[in-house]
Amino acid sequence: MTPGRPVPPPLAKPLPDLTTAATHTTTPGPRLAAAYGATAPDSGLVPLTVSRRAPKEDDVEIAVEFCGLCHSDVHATRGEWGGDTYPLIPGHEIVGRVSRVGSAVEDFTVGERVGVGCMVDSCRECDSCLDGLEQYCENGLVGTYGAKDARNDGAITQGGYATSIVVDRNYVLRVPESLDPAAAAPLLCAGITTYSPLSHFEVEEGDVVGVVGLGGLGHMAVKIAKAMGAEVKVFTTSENKFAAARELGADDVILSTDPAAMEAANRSIDVIIDTVAASHDLNPYFRTLRLDGALFQLGLPAEAMPPVNPGALIRRRIAYAGSLIGGIAETQEMLDFCAEHGVVSDVEVVGADQLNEAYDRMVAGDVKYRFVLDASTLGSPAEKADA
Amino acid sequence: MTPGRPVPPPLAKPLPDLTTAATHTTTPGPRLAAAYGATAPDSGLVPLTVSRRAPKEDDVEIAVEFCGLCHSDVHATRGEWGGDTYPLIPGHEIVGRVSRVGSAVEDFTVGERVGVGCMVDSCRECDSCLDGLEQYCENGLVGTYGAKDARNDGAITQGGYATSIVVDRNYVLRVPESLDPAAAAPLLCAGITTYSPLSHFEVEEGDVVGVVGLGGLGHMAVKIAKAMGAEVKVFTTSENKFAAARELGADDVILSTDPAAMEAANRSIDVIIDTVAASHDLNPYFRTLRLDGALFQLGLPAEAMPPVNPGALIRRRIAYAGSLIGGIAETQEMLDFCAEHGVVSDVEVVGADQLNEAYDRMVAGDVKYRFVLDASTLGSPAEKADA
Repeated sequence: MTPGRPVPPPLAKPLPDLTTAATHTTTPGPRLAAAYGATAPDSGLVPLTVSRRAPKEDDVEIAVEFCGLCHSDVHATRGEWGGDTYPLIPGHEIVGRVSRVGSAVEDFTVGERVGVGCMVDSCRECDSCLDGLEQYCENGLVGTYGAKDARNDGAITQGGYATSIVVDRNYVLRVPESLDPAAAAPLLCAGITTYSPLSHFEVEEGDVVGVVGLGGLGHMAVKIAKAMGAEVKVFTTSENKFAAARELGADDVILSTDPAAMEAANRSIDVIIDTVAASHDLNPYFRTLRLDGALFQLGLPAEAMPPVNPGALIRRRIAYAGSLIGGIAETQEMLDFCAEHGVVSDVEVVGADQLNEAYDRMVAGDVKYRFVLDASTLGSPAEKADA
Repeated sequence: MTPGRPVPPPLAKPLPDLTTAATHTTTPGPRLAAAYGATAPDSGLVPLTVSRRAPKEDDVEIAVEFCGLCHSDVHATRGEWGGDTYPLIPGHEIVGRVSRVGSAVEDFTVGERVGVGCMVDSCRECDSCLDGLEQYCENGLVGTYGAKDARNDGAITQGGYATSIVVDRNYVLRVPESLDPAAAAPLLCAGITTYSPLSHFEVEEGDVVGVVGLGGLGHMAVKIAKAMGAEVKVFTTSENKFAAARELGADDVILSTDPAAMEAANRSIDVIIDTVAASHDLNPYFRTLRLDGALFQLGLPAEAMPPVNPGALIRRRIAYAGSLIGGIAETQEMLDFCAEHGVVSDVEVVGADQLNEAYDRMVAGDVKYRFVLDASTLGSPAEKADA
C-alpha cells in the first residue's frame, strides 16, 4: 500500500427505493454516495465516499445506473494532465434515474431516465453559452469531475463512478427509454464528440465520411455517420480490425500504412473524423479529402504532431479543424437521434472491482469499444477494498 | 555571359494600332510578341520573342499593357520549384486591351480592357470546373506560364511579360475602365487570392479580419477586407510597418513578436488571412481567433511549418485552411467589387530593363507593394539585350 494512502471510507448510505419515490421528495440535506476514485496519481482506483449536496432549487439528483470509462478518466486519475486534485472521482458518461429534484425543477420528474456528460455548468453569459455552445464557454466550462464549481462554493466536482450525483437541470439530458442504459452511457461523451462535428459539417445521405482510429470514439463515429446516411470508410493501421470495422457498418476499410491503398482513396472523402489521440501524420489523410473537405481532430496527443503541409490544404481548400464534445441542446439532439436510429455504443459492462484492470486494458487498446461501470456494484466499496 | 545562353532574339513585330482596329479582324496567322523571360535558372530575365498562336474560334488576343510581378515569377524563373522548362516567360497578372478575337467570340470586342490571371485553361469537365472552381480543377489547371496546354498541341504556355498573349475567352476577365490598368494588374493574382477566402468565409460588416504579412497579398487583403466592411488587424514582425498598415486602412496593428500584444488580441478575430510564404508558427495566431474562426494560409513555404497544436483548434472549433487563387466567375466578381469600391493595388511601375533589379528588391521585401511591368517598354528587347 502506498504510504499516506487514506483509509477506505465507510459504507455509503443506500439510495431510496425509486419505485416508491414521489416528485419533489422532501428529504432534506446532502447525501453520501459510494464511489470509486483515485487518491493520488499512483493509487489506482479505490473505494471512496462522496457527499452530494442537497438539491438546490434548480438541481436534479440522479441515482446513477451506469457510467462509461473514457480515456480522459485514465489520464486524470493518473495525474497525466497535471493540476489534478485528489481524491478524484472520474466519470462523465453518466446514465441514471432522477431520484430528487429541486423546488424550481418542473421539467424533470423522479424516476425519469437522464444523463450527464462532460460538463455540469458553464458561465451562461458569454456568447458561446448564449448560443448553446456551452462546451466552448469563454470563461471555461465546469467539468463533471476535477473542476472548481463556482456556483457551488467552489467545491471540486466529482464524477459519475458513484451511486449518485447532483447536477443543475440545465446540464441534465433526457435519455430515451428505448436505449439500453449501459450502452447509452458512452453517448454522453464518445457519442456527442463524434456527432457534433458530423452535424456541424451537415453530413447527409450521399456524403462520404472517413474515420481514423477504431476505439471508443471511432466506433461511435462509424455508427452515427452511417445513421446519417453517409458512406463510411475506416482507416486503420491494423488488418486485424478490418472485420470489426465492417461489422460496425463501414463500407470500406483502408490500411493507412499501405501507400497504394491510401492513393486509391485519393479525393474520395468529404469529412474525416480523426479520433487518434497519439501523434500521427495527417498529410496522407488530407490527400483522401475532396475539395472543401475537412478533417476534424478530436484527440489531443501528448506529443507534438508532425508538421502539416499547407500545400495539401491550399490545393483543395481543405480545413483542418478541431471540435470539442457538444453543447447541451446538441447533446439532447444526439440522444434523440440515436434513439430514432437505434444507435448505441458497443460496451463491456464491468463491476467496480474490475475498474483497475479495465484501465490497463483501455491503455492497451483491449476493449470493444467502451467499458461501462455498473454503478450497482459500488454498493459495498469497503468490503472490496478490504479484499 | 553564361555559357550556352541563347543569342538574343530579333525585334518583335509591333502590334497594330488598336485605335483603328475593327472587331473580328481578319489578319490571319500567329503573331510574334516581344517578351522578357529566363532561358535558364541563372540567366536572369532577358529579352525574348514569343510566337502567339492565331486566335482560334474561342480565342481572344490581348495587347498587354501591364503585368504584375508575383513572387511565383521569381521562384519559377529561377527554377526554385523544379520541373521548369526554358525559355520561361513569367507573368500572370495581365491587363491589356483586346486586339483580335476568334470567329466564335461574341462577348469580347476589340479595344475592350481585359485581364488574365493565373490560369488560361482547365479540363472543364470535372466537378470543380463545372462548379466554377476551375482553380481546383481535378485534372490540373493550365497555368498562364510554364504549363502544358493540351488544347493547343501541348505547347508550353508563356506568360504576360510580353506585348501580347492569346487566351481562350473562358479564361479572360473584363477589367472595368474605372480602374487604373497598372494598379489593377495585381488584382488578377494578389487580389483574387485574398478576395476568395474572405468571400468564401462570407466576411461582412462587423467581422474582424486579421492579416498576417504586409506584402503584395497582405496589402490587398487589408484593402479588400476594409471594402467588405470588416475591422482589420494587421500582424507584423516589424514596428516599422505600423504606419504603412494604418495608411492602408488597418484599424489595429499588432507586433506579433510581442507576447503581451498577442495576448491582448486573444479571441478577437473571426478570420485570419496569412500571406507569409516563409515557415512560421501559427499557434499564437490561433489564440487570437474567436469560436468558429478560421485561418487561411495562402503562401507555401519551402521549409516545413512548425507543428500545429490541435488543442488550439479543438478548444474553439477553429479551422486551419488553405485557399488557392479563385475561380473565373469569382475573379470577375472581385474585379467588379474592386471597381465598385475603388480598390486597386499600390504599385511601382517598372520598365523591362528594371526587371532583374525588381526581382532582387522583391526577394529583399523592398517594394510597396507590387511591381508592375509596363509592357510598352518591351518594344525593343534586342537593343536592351545588346546594351
